[in-house]
Amino acid sequence: MSVPTPSSSVPETAGEPVVPGRLMAAEMAEQPEVLRRLLERERGAGGAPTIRETAQAIAARAPRFVLLTARGTSDNAALYAKYLIEVLLGRPCGLTSMSTTTAYQAKADLTDCLVITVSQSGGSPDLVASTRAAREAGAITLAVTNNAASPLAQVSEFHIDVLAGPEEALPATKTYTAELLALYLLVAGMRGADGPEQAAALPELAESVLARREEVRALAGRYRFADRMVITSRGYGYPTAKEAALKLMETSYIPALSYSGADLLHGPLAMVDNISPVIAVVTDGRGGEALQPVLDRLRDRGADLVVIGPKPQVDAASAGFVLPTAGLPEELQPILEIMPLQMLAYEVTLARGQDPDAPRALAKVTQTH
Amino acid sequence: MSVPTPSSSVPETAGEPVVPGRLMAAEMAEQPEVLRRLLERERGAGGAPTIRETAQAIAARAPRFVLLTARGTSDNAALYAKYLIEVLLGRPCGLTSMSTTTAYQAKADLTDCLVITVSQSGGSPDLVASTRAAREAGAITLAVTNNAASPLAQVSEFHIDVLAGPEEALPATKTYTAELLALYLLVAGMRGADGPEQAAALPELAESVLARREEVRALAGRYRFADRMVITSRGYGYPTAKEAALKLMETSYIPALSYSGADLLHGPLAMVDNISPVIAVVTDGRGGEALQPVLDRLRDRGADLVVIGPKPQVDAASAGFVLPTAGLPEELQPILEIMPLQMLAYEVTLARGQDPDAPRALAKVTQTH
Repeated sequence: MSVPTPSSSVPETAGEPVVPGRLMAAEMAEQPEVLRRLLERERGAGGAPTIRETAQAIAARAPRFVLLTARGTSDNAALYAKYLIEVLLGRPCGLTSMSTTTAYQAKADLTDCLVITVSQSGGSPDLVASTRAAREAGAITLAVTNNAASPLAQVSEFHIDVLAGPEEALPATKTYTAELLALYLLVAGMRGADGPEQAAALPELAESVLARREEVRALAGRYRFADRMVITSRGYGYPTAKEAALKLMETSYIPALSYSGADLLHGPLAMVDNISPVIAVVTDGRGGEALQPVLDRLRDRGADLVVIGPKPQVDAASAGFVLPTAGLPEELQPILEIMPLQMLAYEVTLARGQDPDAPRALAKVTQTH
Repeated sequence: MSVPTPSSSVPETAGEPVVPGRLMAAEMAEQPEVLRRLLERERGAGGAPTIRETAQAIAARAPRFVLLTARGTSDNAALYAKYLIEVLLGRPCGLTSMSTTTAYQAKADLTDCLVITVSQSGGSPDLVASTRAAREAGAITLAVTNNAASPLAQVSEFHIDVLAGPEEALPATKTYTAELLALYLLVAGMRGADGPEQAAALPELAESVLARREEVRALAGRYRFADRMVITSRGYGYPTAKEAALKLMETSYIPALSYSGADLLHGPLAMVDNISPVIAVVTDGRGGEALQPVLDRLRDRGADLVVIGPKPQVDAASAGFVLPTAGLPEELQPILEIMPLQMLAYEVTLARGQDPDAPRALAKVTQTH
């Protein structure tokens, strides 16, 4: 038995010091490499060329409706895909309420439906059960996972591997951005667009964002004593708002509420005043434009407004983080936007003396049925 | 100029005392009458027989996919309809991301799609625009509103009037339960079931729930100093959890987070400990059964758990409100379940010295574009 060294406050396991947030930090830092892997793999080795082949095989089946099934972080990736599918593919699309299948045994006719199930582990029994039921009901089934050997990948007709490598930290980071890019490449492939070309700048831009830790740490100071946060966006940035809220809650335990800008005006705005911090995710494009009246309204109310987005919107806010999105299509910006917010959750958690790698009560594979 | 009477703490306007929460209280109390009106109107006068005719006309068009569009409280009613449509009609169903049409001009082929837009006022320009776009894209369009003369009702091929009468309070109450019942009658009519027969007990049950103000006031005392709340459910009760969270936020400003029980286990559970109050909406049926493992987990964590639901689950919790649902099908219970939670939002707000009728920043018709 080892005796703790009184001079060190860092607990030790088998001689290796446990640095709070070590796993989450390492996996956030891997993101440029994971994006590069997805974009640059050679044909036959997974990644973009394989996703394109899968996309073309699915497009040849001419699905008319798309349903997306996921939970937690992957559900936010699914919401991102919903925007892509509605806007770029022009297909009506819905997010599945899984309990209708697993608890209520709903039997829908899913002919002509593409059912996409997104899951990091591919191991949740309820996702496997609902995907199996969808396939039996006539759906074209596609699993998007980080584990090609998972039960979910096995039960689905098609599979896309997001190639993020093992994820050990409980708060998912690199698998989220990998899921976003894989879903983007899927939709690009289904409509015959050159996804890898459009996304080529991403890995380098991601490196530049992740290098700005000091800026994020300064922002984090602002939330040291926050007892609530509101995160808002519109359009492509809305999944980012939801994922940022989830990241903040599961690491720092700050109740973080996410709303589309339009919904915020419908009621929750009552909660926002000059002591309620608001973070707005402003895409450089139509979503950001549609959010502008909400930003104006928040400023009128004296909200503490932090903007993640283009420089003019950051300059007009209380503070912010300028995203280097020049030239990147709006639909790809969510892959970058979430990174400063992942870093923010990490830094706020450290600043509060907690360990981002050890959230209370979280299990990596949730065994809901 | 009138001089305030020092002996009275109630402010006066034109001689009439302004009682905080007067409007919200009056409209909550109207709910049994509104439900009765919807169920018992004679043929040709709106209500159940008219909804049945509309439902049959829509069913004759054989929609294969259903999309629901709404905001705020009506969005929670739309989510309830999504469960009905998936479970009872067996049709795949999605909630629309409105900005894909209004901000991004997505052009989907909506042949064979039924697009249902739910809105109390029928006046939001973005709902009108997205419904018009859906109709032009080939959808069967149905508006469910509280105003037959509204622009939304005019622009839609079909219209259902929820007959709730003018709603003056900013927090919507009677229009929510009226929307739920109208949507239930729609789905019953589409599948040839006798909706009014199934729902016949509702008005009386609603009266019995609304009469239990003292019980709710006692529960409200618990949240006098709460700085966050988590509300959870599964299946048919999930829209209730979301609507309860919205009601609490827009009246009392308490950050109230709602999660499906399954999603709660995926991350936000980290936020729940013995100082975080949790309210669980437990339906008497499969949704409640599927929530049981989540309730067990919350109890293990020492959460302060208040249950709205059947007696055994209330008895096993820290406190609760027993719902009189015996004999009422699970899919109708949400119409009752929300009432004690509306009352709770009202009582917590009064207990905190605020006025439920005067939320900061809320406008009745939101003019988002």
